[in-house]
Amino acid sequence: MSNYYTLSVDTLGSETKIEDILLGLNQSLERNLNIRFILFGNSIDLKNKIRKYKALSKASEIVDCQDVVTMSDSPSEIIKIKQNSTMARAISSISENSANAVLSFGNTGALMSFSLLGLRTMKEIRRPAIASIWPNLKGDSIILDLGANTKLDSRFLIDNALLGASLASVLFKINSPSVGLLNVGTEKNKGNEEIKIASEKLSQLSNDNILNYHGYIEGNDISLGKTNVVVTDGFTGNIALKTAEGTAKLFQSHLNNAFRSSFISRIGYFFSSIALTSVRERLDPRVHNCGILMGLNGLVVKCHGQSEYKGVSYAADIIYSLLSNNVHEKIEEYIRKIHLKLKD
Amino acid sequence: MSNYYTLSVDTLGSETKIEDILLGLNQSLERNLNIRFILFGNSIDLKNKIRKYKALSKASEIVDCQDVVTMSDSPSEIIKIKQNSTMARAISSISENSANAVLSFGNTGALMSFSLLGLRTMKEIRRPAIASIWPNLKGDSIILDLGANTKLDSRFLIDNALLGASLASVLFKINSPSVGLLNVGTEKNKGNEEIKIASEKLSQLSNDNILNYHGYIEGNDISLGKTNVVVTDGFTGNIALKTAEGTAKLFQSHLNNAFRSSFISRIGYFFSSIALTSVRERLDPRVHNCGILMGLNGLVVKCHGQSEYKGVSYAADIIYSLLSNNVHEKIEEYIRKIHLKLKD
Repeated sequence: MSNYYTLSVDTLGSETKIEDILLGLNQSLERNLNIRFILFGNSIDLKNKIRKYKALSKASEIVDCQDVVTMSDSPSEIIKIKQNSTMARAISSISENSANAVLSFGNTGALMSFSLLGLRTMKEIRRPAIASIWPNLKGDSIILDLGANTKLDSRFLIDNALLGASLASVLFKINSPSVGLLNVGTEKNKGNEEIKIASEKLSQLSNDNILNYHGYIEGNDISLGKTNVVVTDGFTGNIALKTAEGTAKLFQSHLNNAFRSSFISRIGYFFSSIALTSVRERLDPRVHNCGILMGLNGLVVKCHGQSEYKGVSYAADIIYSLLSNNVHEKIEEYIRKIHLKLKD
Repeated sequence: MSNYYTLSVDTLGSETKIEDILLGLNQSLERNLNIRFILFGNSIDLKNKIRKYKALSKASEIVDCQDVVTMSDSPSEIIKIKQNSTMARAISSISENSANAVLSFGNTGALMSFSLLGLRTMKEIRRPAIASIWPNLKGDSIILDLGANTKLDSRFLIDNALLGASLASVLFKINSPSVGLLNVGTEKNKGNEEIKIASEKLSQLSNDNILNYHGYIEGNDISLGKTNVVVTDGFTGNIALKTAEGTAKLFQSHLNNAFRSSFISRIGYFFSSIALTSVRERLDPRVHNCGILMGLNGLVVKCHGQSEYKGVSYAADIIYSLLSNNVHEKIEEYIRKIHLKLKD
């Protein structure tokens, strides 16, 4: 395993098709030669469909496993009864040292529960968070939490700020990424008590040069790219992300209708289609909507439940980049250093 | 005043230009003949600029008043010291029975404070909420609260559901509008305690045929138009609205760049511009982003701080429609009836 990074893929439990998973992994393999895969799922189906990808067949081990965690399974119940599911076994492959990371398209709550149980959190972090890369006017930003932890607590917000800053610093190669705290306004008196406590604490960390805290930001600042990191609780973050998805779909749908509305605009569409496709791809959540489970002793990535092959290959590329840049180790180091400073 | 509806307009304290306010009101007046205006602001400036609109000049009273509530004023402080501001005096005009409604573009928190002080809440409602009309794939829906009350409390969520249902029923002419509660998932175990309590209570109201409760909905369901009413707390609602605004801007900006990217796509733009303009207008927050302050003994509408004339005329049209349909009285009646049933 030493010269390769091994990615365990949970192939069942979502609307993502096996065909899309295999094509996506194969494309990523063409770009990232030293990656190997363990595919957890229906081995007959997988063997049948992987055949046409020679390189991928060679780079993959298939583990037969047909117990599936469904989208409606309750996380607290299934962690006992679905220990043999594709999801549980993929997570176990990290703790057993046979893989470096897990990619799943399935039930987020269940994935979080299995990950917590199997990998546990870093000792400096109270609760894990889901982080995502959000496209904005200036490039990309990191936003977290997107739904791992829906309880609002200033301590979790501070953990999220540290995790987000460490991910942004490594992923975007910025020394001191700016961190914004999502609120209903930018003035000091805005928001609830937990937000205010977190903001005060983050300002202290900023004064001590531990973190580059920008202050409060508002919902529209996410897409404007005002800060490199957007910190919020899992309830607000989840709703913000899905609202943005819905808005993008609405925009797209109105655009399609508008282009169909007259002969002239159909001509317009003919000449615009390349430009429009590029916008769609840049903003399509099915392409780049993957959440990185942060704060755990291991790398777990959750991809959109209706991913297409481009989304799969994008996710595999990100995981490869995280692994080959030792991001996880760097984040652990970053968090440890900050916590030492915090104790001073 | 009996044959006319009188709208007090707070013309200062935002980035909305006087020129846009006057042009917008004039356009609305052309469509809604029996509306009159009281304009609070700099009378020299107003008299100078209103001159070119004969009908508007005739239909408007100008009240000189130059004390301005700024966007950075703290609501709790200014309600004592800015009793003579354009905003405070516009609100007073309702309680003094010289006007039927107020339109402001200024500081939302301050507007809420002056309204609470001057108009008080309906006796059945604990806290006011800001409602807005949100475009979706099927038409429009009502979403509230957008930031009047950022405290999460199941009782406020239920008040919001009642206020939203009454507004939707009157505005969209639906007997029993469907109501969704915004959450991080649709399964029963999702969300925090307050949401769960509210959902249970709303289910009871639905069983008793008092309300048509759909259940939990997610962020993307807002733009899909899954329910006629979307209920949430003021913190989440404010962030959802502004995130959607930001996403629309991001989409627009990418589209503009894409159209500029090649000669072919510039030709595409030439033929598509009518279609694109219609989409922009349908989704531009500056055109139709106005919030209706609900639960008060009076009609107060807050419009986007950077409104253009189209947004002003849209807001004045909505206010006219609310007034001429006795929406406020119908909502009071609806709320009273429900509260009688609740007591049974």
